[in-house]
Amino acid sequence: MNSFGNKLRFSTFGESHGVAIGCILDGVPAGLKIDEEYIQSELDRRKPGKSEFETARKEADKVEILSGVFEGVSTGTPIAMVIYNTNQKSRDYTNIKDVFRPGHADFTYFHKYGIRDYRGGGRSSARETAARVAAGAIAKLMLKELEIEIVSGISEIDGIKSQAFDYDYAKKSIIYALDPNQETKQKEAILKAKNEHDSVGGVSRVVIKNVPVGLGQPLYYKLDAILADAMMGINAVKAVEIGDGVLSASSKGSLNNDPIRKDGFVSNHAGGILGGISNGEDIVLNVYFKPTPSIFQEQKTITTQNEEVDFSLKGRHDPCVAIRGSIVCEAMAALVIADMLLLNMGSQMQGVLKYYGK
Amino acid sequence: MNSFGNKLRFSTFGESHGVAIGCILDGVPAGLKIDEEYIQSELDRRKPGKSEFETARKEADKVEILSGVFEGVSTGTPIAMVIYNTNQKSRDYTNIKDVFRPGHADFTYFHKYGIRDYRGGGRSSARETAARVAAGAIAKLMLKELEIEIVSGISEIDGIKSQAFDYDYAKKSIIYALDPNQETKQKEAILKAKNEHDSVGGVSRVVIKNVPVGLGQPLYYKLDAILADAMMGINAVKAVEIGDGVLSASSKGSLNNDPIRKDGFVSNHAGGILGGISNGEDIVLNVYFKPTPSIFQEQKTITTQNEEVDFSLKGRHDPCVAIRGSIVCEAMAALVIADMLLLNMGSQMQGVLKYYGK
Amino acid sequence: MNSFGNKLRFSTFGESHGVAIGCILDGVPAGLKIDEEYIQSELDRRKPGKSEFETARKEADKVEILSGVFEGVSTGTPIAMVIYNTNQKSRDYTNIKDVFRPGHADFTYFHKYGIRDYRGGGRSSARETAARVAAGAIAKLMLKELEIEIVSGISEIDGIKSQAFDYDYAKKSIIYALDPNQETKQKEAILKAKNEHDSVGGVSRVVIKNVPVGLGQPLYYKLDAILADAMMGINAVKAVEIGDGVLSASSKGSLNNDPIRKDGFVSNHAGGILGGISNGEDIVLNVYFKPTPSIFQEQKTITTQNEEVDFSLKGRHDPCVAIRGSIVCEAMAALVIADMLLLNMGSQMQGVLKYYGK
Amino acid sequence: MNSFGNKLRFSTFGESHGVAIGCILDGVPAGLKIDEEYIQSELDRRKPGKSEFETARKEADKVEILSGVFEGVSTGTPIAMVIYNTNQKSRDYTNIKDVFRPGHADFTYFHKYGIRDYRGGGRSSARETAARVAAGAIAKLMLKELEIEIVSGISEIDGIKSQAFDYDYAKKSIIYALDPNQETKQKEAILKAKNEHDSVGGVSRVVIKNVPVGLGQPLYYKLDAILADAMMGINAVKAVEIGDGVLSASSKGSLNNDPIRKDGFVSNHAGGILGGISNGEDIVLNVYFKPTPSIFQEQKTITTQNEEVDFSLKGRHDPCVAIRGSIVCEAMAALVIADMLLLNMGSQMQGVLKYYGK
Repeated sequence: MNSFGNKLRFSTFGESHGVAIGCILDGVPAGLKIDEEYIQSELDRRKPGKSEFETARKEADKVEILSGVFEGVSTGTPIAMVIYNTNQKSRDYTNIKDVFRPGHADFTYFHKYGIRDYRGGGRSSARETAARVAAGAIAKLMLKELEIEIVSGISEIDGIKSQAFDYDYAKKSIIYALDPNQETKQKEAILKAKNEHDSVGGVSRVVIKNVPVGLGQPLYYKLDAILADAMMGINAVKAVEIGDGVLSASSKGSLNNDPIRKDGFVSNHAGGILGGISNGEDIVLNVYFKPTPSIFQEQKTITTQNEEVDFSLKGRHDPCVAIRGSIVCEAMAALVIADMLLLNMGSQMQGVLKYYGK
Repeated sequence: MNSFGNKLRFSTFGESHGVAIGCILDGVPAGLKIDEEYIQSELDRRKPGKSEFETARKEADKVEILSGVFEGVSTGTPIAMVIYNTNQKSRDYTNIKDVFRPGHADFTYFHKYGIRDYRGGGRSSARETAARVAAGAIAKLMLKELEIEIVSGISEIDGIKSQAFDYDYAKKSIIYALDPNQETKQKEAILKAKNEHDSVGGVSRVVIKNVPVGLGQPLYYKLDAILADAMMGINAVKAVEIGDGVLSASSKGSLNNDPIRKDGFVSNHAGGILGGISNGEDIVLNVYFKPTPSIFQEQKTITTQNEEVDFSLKGRHDPCVAIRGSIVCEAMAALVIADMLLLNMGSQMQGVLKYYGK
Repeated sequence: MNSFGNKLRFSTFGESHGVAIGCILDGVPAGLKIDEEYIQSELDRRKPGKSEFETARKEADKVEILSGVFEGVSTGTPIAMVIYNTNQKSRDYTNIKDVFRPGHADFTYFHKYGIRDYRGGGRSSARETAARVAAGAIAKLMLKELEIEIVSGISEIDGIKSQAFDYDYAKKSIIYALDPNQETKQKEAILKAKNEHDSVGGVSRVVIKNVPVGLGQPLYYKLDAILADAMMGINAVKAVEIGDGVLSASSKGSLNNDPIRKDGFVSNHAGGILGGISNGEDIVLNVYFKPTPSIFQEQKTITTQNEEVDFSLKGRHDPCVAIRGSIVCEAMAALVIADMLLLNMGSQMQGVLKYYGK
Repeated sequence: MNSFGNKLRFSTFGESHGVAIGCILDGVPAGLKIDEEYIQSELDRRKPGKSEFETARKEADKVEILSGVFEGVSTGTPIAMVIYNTNQKSRDYTNIKDVFRPGHADFTYFHKYGIRDYRGGGRSSARETAARVAAGAIAKLMLKELEIEIVSGISEIDGIKSQAFDYDYAKKSIIYALDPNQETKQKEAILKAKNEHDSVGGVSRVVIKNVPVGLGQPLYYKLDAILADAMMGINAVKAVEIGDGVLSASSKGSLNNDPIRKDGFVSNHAGGILGGISNGEDIVLNVYFKPTPSIFQEQKTITTQNEEVDFSLKGRHDPCVAIRGSIVCEAMAALVIADMLLLNMGSQMQGVLKYYGK
């Protein structure tokens, strides 16, 4: 239940303030060049403390490969990666020890497991997503060899929507903004919320380019369903759209159907997926993040003893989790696509015979 | 890949115009009273041909239990159910045999499998969802014993939104409308599209009531993620929201966090799930369906020989798939919750010891 | 839990005296010619009532394909098969209704599920293996295209061991005897036990020929481990050997290691598997069946009310389950190998790139 | 594919001479006291270099817990454990770099993955089993709370069979011998083989005591089948027996059936399992290990370039892998039983209702 994927499958471990977090990535084909610097660079995109738009808490997020790579290439065996928590002992948790932080998983974990791991969210902390990014980086290395590319960016913050989607710009923007013209307003919204000890929500848009036709395993491992699973499972995500998404529900069939021509589809309302299988067009996802639940205003909550209290959180937190969340979306998308690539290989008897030289 | 769920797991089979469709439901605890009439009544809610708002094609959708039930109760062994296709031979497919219908899975299945099963969509047809409803009905029987209830209804058609959510009303409405005041307008929109040989999209709202705190298996079998998987995997679904969903992305933390009091949460922006685990509040889902891709206007497409053609579909089809889809959403929700109930049973050592009388 | 396999996965349903038994076989690559007569012929090899060495109970074991096959070839979608129980209502169970038959699963099922399905063993009956043979027949059709062959035969009955392994002879022998010189003695042993209202054990030997090097997914889906799982899970099996098996434990490394030459291994003590992966040599399995627990002598047992009784079973039963069990071993072996063939396809990055034309 | 188990599931990583080996154990119920000293003591039982009957290579096998434990108890989240390889850089592999060692997995891994990880077997090395023992130790802590005990010992070495099964004696014996009267002969056989640069096989006998009736999930997650899978998957194992095993195939039904009385079974030919489900009697397994393939006599083999060579291995190796293997058998048995305990909890509706207080 702490694993994701089928033929390419990763399992993560670790709590935000334990010894370490990490993952095992199983099913990477042998012979893939593992570029450790690239993996680290992906982690660096996600890591906290890079600007005033993020939490001030710093983590080195230095990843170490423990297995599965020999002489720079994957061996086909599990790739274990570990990220030691360097910041783990620096906190005093007296403030939150017995209190369920509103909007957090404190209440539900306590009731499910009968245990209060009060150290900054423990397992439910978004810190765990660093392990996903590490695994996702290896998935991206696989995808690169197949010329599949994943891009993303922030399309909305505090209701301020992008009018343009410039993925190259987003790469360089400190808040991964897709629209240079909205970026300043979006930044201001973040800082305003921060100053008011509040937080804002946001939307990440992910596009997967050059996906071969045929990925997705119907009917219960559909490409769109698994992408939805992958995205909705990211901390703070409350909605997922494929293609036109919500808007398609107010459209007409005559407008929403994408006409087909010899060289492809004329439009892409479907977002690259039909019947749960990729159709060769760009796969387009919108992922909606709620505002960070960690805010510093006084809130009403209860303790583990069921006493009602007024509570003010202290500490350092992202005023908008969607930003760094965007990198996690990319990683999860990469892991899904790489898995689907492997799963698809046995779809036709002809392919099986060819593989075995018959 | 044609199976869904973990401890409670169903596998479906069948094509829209093959011999039969059906499923195996595995993991039903022994000793559950299996009310066959109830199962049939659930199928009757989904079955086509009940009104002018649906396809005119009729199917008896008569379900037969082949195994797993003895003297009226489940035995703990797999429950197989079969629904023979009574209407299967009545069609002439010459019209669509070599053509990929826009908005359908014809194109993607052909490329994935190298085969054109041209009989009304084959496996990709929404007819398969009858098997889900049969399995879901048994899940609902389980949930009833635990006093968990699932309700649903149509909250939007062709952009016409419900202002009220009356689930009792929806049960009786022929289009499962949640708002009696919008129902007429919604019906008119459907019929207008139908008359124009077009189709409309719609939204199903599903609410799960009285769920115990603690359901959901983090981090990769979270309750919200698996519900998203379940819903996005239903034919024609393009977006899924939990709780406030899309709107939460333009909210503030101070507004979006649900305050906690002794007797529960003060609000329910979270839609009943925190950190992927149920918090005891109503679980609220919105499921967005695209307009039926089967429309009778002329459309641009290609053939299996990659020839461009102008194509007009014939036959009988739902002008709005969201309506009957709503029943499928309920079924999938029931299957997810029942699975999660079983999975949760080993969460605490204390519960394990108690179960085994230690 | 009623499913077996990973990429090629089958799920079975049905009780010995319910309406029907059957299976869903999921993951068959599209484009495989499905020879229904061949499937039926495999079922005929397993079906009861063919001679005095088997139970006198007759079952047509007529298999019907419900899905997944179109115009004679697999479509890539689940293949459902059903075998209706024609003999199901002919029995009177008063005799065994409240009694746990020694050596049977009656006692354990009752305690696990709290239910007594007294109809001839219900789900635990070996009748379910007909569904495995049907699925296995399709796996064999796959293997044939890859020139992989599975042969088997009875190598021992009542302690009378084969000195020769003639698989062609076994095919024609009514007891699937591998050694023509031992066959008469083996037959006599069966009939003697039968006349004494007793039963005998036996051993099935299965050989898989022409398996490509490289099948098996270490470390927890090893070829030998999954074969052991598959065989031990067959009714009445109590031991499984790979290659020299038990004897290898009293051997020396210098004798047991198979020397390697340019054109293959000089000997085959390993039984074709090293490190859980096929090495290109014949895969050799010995599967040990206990004597049929259904005997007609008086036995000591208890009732569901925990009363001690002396009990004599009535009815018709195989005096030696190993014989028909041998066909089930073949089927399970075929399913394992076909699954492993599909799983192996993503082992090397080079193969992935080639598959996708890069 | 590097994971084992269902509700209690562990995934291992690491190569014999890489940075580290380790595992993630997922599904441990929250609230289990985690005794780290006990885990280490189990590893110490398996670790090499304790006597002249084992390899002279020393490894500290110091285990470190990275996650899932807080204030000494399990939290319900994944427990990651790592064992750094302290001895990893001390070897020179020139000798075996291009040579496939007979009886080893070198040949099959090379062909499967296209890569030669020549460092002492890499992933296929029995060193990985230390991670299983660590995971198994936690499973044993769970079993202890339920008063289930697992014992084991060596019942045969080089054909010298135990006449008695003294599990307490075995615990103290340096070769885990079950029979004090055979121990000296067994030791001599090991040393004789060692002096002749050869190796011997052996048999481990494992008994699981006090297992509740009802464990095992039919039909494809049967207790015996999964135990067979677990045991056959251990390095060097070539046969597995449950109960009377091989001998049952030459028995009669009248002798092999275990009579049932009010207070249990009169005999235990079945080895505690009927129909794949535990019957409350001791579960008895015999696990057959081939002789260590690493011997120092000259052997015929080939290189990665397919050249025939005469090859003499150097280094330090166990003359009898069964001895330390016995500890691995115990660990795997514990993991299987703990998993089955959790899986069994949803078998009856009554149990589900009770768990949720209905």
